[in-house]
Amino acid sequence: MTAMLDSFATDLTAATSLHQPGNLPHPPHAIDAENVPLSGGTDPTYGEVRWRTLINGTEAAPRDMVLGIAEFGPGHQLRPHRHTPPEFYLGLEGSGIVTIDGVPHEIRAGVALYIPGDAEHGTVAGPEGLRFAYGFASASFEAIEYRFTASA
Amino acid sequence: MTAMLDSFATDLTAATSLHQPGNLPHPPHAIDAENVPLSGGTDPTYGEVRWRTLINGTEAAPRDMVLGIAEFGPGHQLRPHRHTPPEFYLGLEGSGIVTIDGVPHEIRAGVALYIPGDAEHGTVAGPEGLRFAYGFASASFEAIEYRFTASA
Repeated sequence: MTAMLDSFATDLTAATSLHQPGNLPHPPHAIDAENVPLSGGTDPTYGEVRWRTLINGTEAAPRDMVLGIAEFGPGHQLRPHRHTPPEFYLGLEGSGIVTIDGVPHEIRAGVALYIPGDAEHGTVAGPEGLRFAYGFASASFEAIEYRFTASA
Repeated sequence: MTAMLDSFATDLTAATSLHQPGNLPHPPHAIDAENVPLSGGTDPTYGEVRWRTLINGTEAAPRDMVLGIAEFGPGHQLRPHRHTPPEFYLGLEGSGIVTIDGVPHEIRAGVALYIPGDAEHGTVAGPEGLRFAYGFASASFEAIEYRFTASA
């Protein structure tokens, strides 16, 4: 597993942390995605998605929400996984398919997806790649346990 | 006050409801902004902003988050106001200035703003207009009281 990730596991029970030092909290009000380092990359557990955390809570600067932008190259994936807090995706650019509990949904600019808590969801980007905003009504990204479905 | 809005007031104490029937809850998972009617328009209390509510909770389909997209013509405004839940804005298109507790912040595509609870915030769009996503870690948009600062 790449050194830059905290910990990974491939079965459903183990927790997965997608958080990296680069995603530390930012100035209180305004965060420009261009100034936020990309996390992620290619990994057998979660796929090839990369992401930037824009809004996140810490003990010093508590928030009640997490906001980030995920980026996918053509055909790249975020493999099926679950987490207890519900999540939204909002398509920004490109397109892809997000499968929620076995049901495929197209995502593209202007399409919002609501992912219920503990629903299995995975993403495959289209030929032109995909960017979407994602968010949780949670205090911090670090507190969210990503449970990846065991690879078939 | 325009008939399509529930109630409006101009001083700091009175509550303001920006919710309209067109923003009712949508299919559980996927919502295409193109299929959501625009609310808002020109009003002396809140300005000229228009918006689409994409994710929203109801008693029948509870959510723990609200997500919408706000749209502004050139120079249009959402006048200074407060609400108890914190909010995020994520620039999608165009540009503008969002003043939070007296401090101006530029918003454009890729810039996220975190608006602390009860902070006064107002928006003025730039010459090419502005679109941004907004969201709350709240159960429903209707439950959020918008308190507009009395006009000078």
